[in-house]
Amino acid sequence: MTVHPIVEALRELLPSNALVTDPDLLANYRHDSAALCESHLPLAVTLPDDESAITQIMKLSLEHRVPVVPQGALTGLSGAANAVQDCIVVNTRRMNRILHIDAANHTAVVQPGVTNRELRLAAAEFGLTYRPDPSSWESSTIGGNIATNAGGLCCVKYGVTQRFVRGLRVILPDGRSTSLGRRTVKGVAGLNLTELFIGSEGTLGIITEATVGLDPQGAPGLTMAASFADATAAGRAVTAVRKAGITPSLLELIDRTVLRAVDSFARMGIDHTAGALLIAQSDAGSAAPTELAAIADLCSDAGGFDVVVADDEQEAEQLIAARRLAYPALESLGSPLIDDVCVPISALAEMIDFTEQVADESGLVIGVVGHAGDGNLHPTVVVDPGDPGSVEAAHHAIDRIAERALELGGTITGEHGVGLLKVGLLERELDPVAAQLQRQIKELLDPHYLLNPGKVLTRGAVSEWSKVQGQKDNQRQ
Amino acid sequence: MTVHPIVEALRELLPSNALVTDPDLLANYRHDSAALCESHLPLAVTLPDDESAITQIMKLSLEHRVPVVPQGALTGLSGAANAVQDCIVVNTRRMNRILHIDAANHTAVVQPGVTNRELRLAAAEFGLTYRPDPSSWESSTIGGNIATNAGGLCCVKYGVTQRFVRGLRVILPDGRSTSLGRRTVKGVAGLNLTELFIGSEGTLGIITEATVGLDPQGAPGLTMAASFADATAAGRAVTAVRKAGITPSLLELIDRTVLRAVDSFARMGIDHTAGALLIAQSDAGSAAPTELAAIADLCSDAGGFDVVVADDEQEAEQLIAARRLAYPALESLGSPLIDDVCVPISALAEMIDFTEQVADESGLVIGVVGHAGDGNLHPTVVVDPGDPGSVEAAHHAIDRIAERALELGGTITGEHGVGLLKVGLLERELDPVAAQLQRQIKELLDPHYLLNPGKVLTRGAVSEWSKVQGQKDNQRQ
Repeated sequence: MTVHPIVEALRELLPSNALVTDPDLLANYRHDSAALCESHLPLAVTLPDDESAITQIMKLSLEHRVPVVPQGALTGLSGAANAVQDCIVVNTRRMNRILHIDAANHTAVVQPGVTNRELRLAAAEFGLTYRPDPSSWESSTIGGNIATNAGGLCCVKYGVTQRFVRGLRVILPDGRSTSLGRRTVKGVAGLNLTELFIGSEGTLGIITEATVGLDPQGAPGLTMAASFADATAAGRAVTAVRKAGITPSLLELIDRTVLRAVDSFARMGIDHTAGALLIAQSDAGSAAPTELAAIADLCSDAGGFDVVVADDEQEAEQLIAARRLAYPALESLGSPLIDDVCVPISALAEMIDFTEQVADESGLVIGVVGHAGDGNLHPTVVVDPGDPGSVEAAHHAIDRIAERALELGGTITGEHGVGLLKVGLLERELDPVAAQLQRQIKELLDPHYLLNPGKVLTRGAVSEWSKVQGQKDNQRQ
Repeated sequence: MTVHPIVEALRELLPSNALVTDPDLLANYRHDSAALCESHLPLAVTLPDDESAITQIMKLSLEHRVPVVPQGALTGLSGAANAVQDCIVVNTRRMNRILHIDAANHTAVVQPGVTNRELRLAAAEFGLTYRPDPSSWESSTIGGNIATNAGGLCCVKYGVTQRFVRGLRVILPDGRSTSLGRRTVKGVAGLNLTELFIGSEGTLGIITEATVGLDPQGAPGLTMAASFADATAAGRAVTAVRKAGITPSLLELIDRTVLRAVDSFARMGIDHTAGALLIAQSDAGSAAPTELAAIADLCSDAGGFDVVVADDEQEAEQLIAARRLAYPALESLGSPLIDDVCVPISALAEMIDFTEQVADESGLVIGVVGHAGDGNLHPTVVVDPGDPGSVEAAHHAIDRIAERALELGGTITGEHGVGLLKVGLLERELDPVAAQLQRQIKELLDPHYLLNPGKVLTRGAVSEWSKVQGQKDNQRQ
């Protein structure tokens, strides 16, 4: 078997424990948690443990015109980390050191391969915490969280990953390394390039270090739940809570389909007449009971029933069990393909109703869980991966749901990113000039589309447009 | 007197009420609140009332190679809106319509010339508020606030302008118009170009519309103040407050120099032995008294004395009077040149001490007020504008203070921006590759440096560098 010249070069560059070329092992790096999106066996997987190795790999990529796909813990849900044809993977999991925790200034400096959980544990030793809490927090990496601008359950009160990132070190597609951002709480020195890289899904550079803000550990959360006859009523309750100026630390919604799946999965004795369940938490310390009581009242006003406020940690755990079990319950029915849309909160109920309609019309099982307080929903289609018709129907359902989200003033992705899953949908959301601008910036940094190609932004007509503009400018000068 | 051809063209394009060419009137648009920075009489000032006029102006700018300087209410403090030589000003104050307030989803869509105050008043009718509160909030515009990513007093709890901006419409230097961002709470569809324009100080595009998030109006704030023997003790108190996980809605510091200036200006009977005053507010509703009591205790522990908690609105007003009067008090001594640095909170006292040292060594009056909870300080140099030596000494002092902020891990500008005032300092903060990258993005959008030239990013060696890279890439292809 012929070895690609870049693999030969990588063998010279990297120690053997930093390079994987065995096809059996390569298969482990083929795709992230979006297994149904296209993926390929990479030529090689590199596991660099420092920045200079990444610089060298990027230079080889440019020299050999071989694409590079950055990877973290492979917990992404949109295929942004899926290996593309004949690519080199740069997996940053071995860069897993917490370099510094500044307890006085509530900041941490970490390498990209540190997991969200590891950072939390380290911060806890100083009475601090790292807030962003994507569902994958136990295993996903800070590098991946930043590259996807991960959301989570606490965002309704604390915001998404972006809000906690102050500075980044990044290796650009041409191998240049740079430090962006700041250490301080505030700062406006020059263009905000940090934000350009946050959520860029590995298409502009590889994050090699991050400075993030930490918060003091707050009071433990108090939890309540309320059932509703249907999603419309639950949506009404969410709107009322936000309108009342109450900001719970968690406000999750579970629809009828997921409730039934969880009940038959775990035999929890869930009320079959319930059309939706809302779970709320407050971490407002001494004000938490008042806050939860107010939420409970608003839920009742909106038609909520079986309103329960947990008296202790154990009871709270039971209340959120249905949320935690949503994915395993759906998984017991087939392969869940998780969608991610975000709509104005007032359109929440309409979005859920439409999802049920798509399920009815397509005959697919589509369960909805969501960060209701943010208007962010995860319709999850249960697919039979062995049946191409089922996979195709699921993708069609996701397209329809995304289109409806756009019609309602929403976005095709609230927190999971575009990756491969929504690459065909992105330009339905973007203004054409904004799409041009995105490609111009991509091409400025990566003119040959070597870094994570085919993700988020594909080469488009604007490539030609950019060239023509460049020629015009040169003629003018 | 010969009329510049672009002025002729503008006369054809714009109605007479949208064009100023009378030199006496032009003088009103010469500079923002950084009067000591370089400024010129513009060729003409345009006051467009719609987006299409701005597109036409940008096209004329490109055709005639005449620079355009965007302006709002001219309350900026770094000279970002100062007219440059032979430029056209685009002042957006006539684009002052609030287009939509979505009470259910807590968003507003506004034109750039709406003032911060106008938006607040309009939001209040729905029980909502627009949070960002730069000191200039009564007259500064939303467009200007976004272009500078304005900070303010509430940032310690609620964050800077950036946190509230969801979407923008922007006219690019080549006249293209585009919509960026989203309406929803969250969204990760493509590169975050919205953030690229926020804080870009009018160097990348002209904002013509903004979608911003509103918050429910909270409880009114409860106020307290504490005196300290010196800034070091006050800094210790601030660190203790933040460490305790308390997030007041305001945490301001006033140093000895300002206290004395305010006292002799307003005869308020301020304690002359006090070396610093801290003012804190809590808007935590029923939890506010507990929160303020905890802050008061921490102040006492750090050596605070004369700790007063206001019993009513009037007493609170007295407590913050010293903060409100800081600028007029310093103004009574000469022309205040306001600096703006941000340091890690643990370095706050050291930064203030250094400022006092600079004042002692230079013989200048330098008073410090600051958003202490964010580590953001405004050392304010009192200048005799008629004495060039005094102006030069002030600029030298600002350079020294910025250098010290950088040494302490801080930034040369926390919230006022680079503008002209700190254009020479920016590259001392930025990593060289980050500076290259900033210029590459500037040149991508504005290859001829026609939009707000000389601000933030000046043409540098990288212009040549970019060209060489471009040639190399062309050769490779």
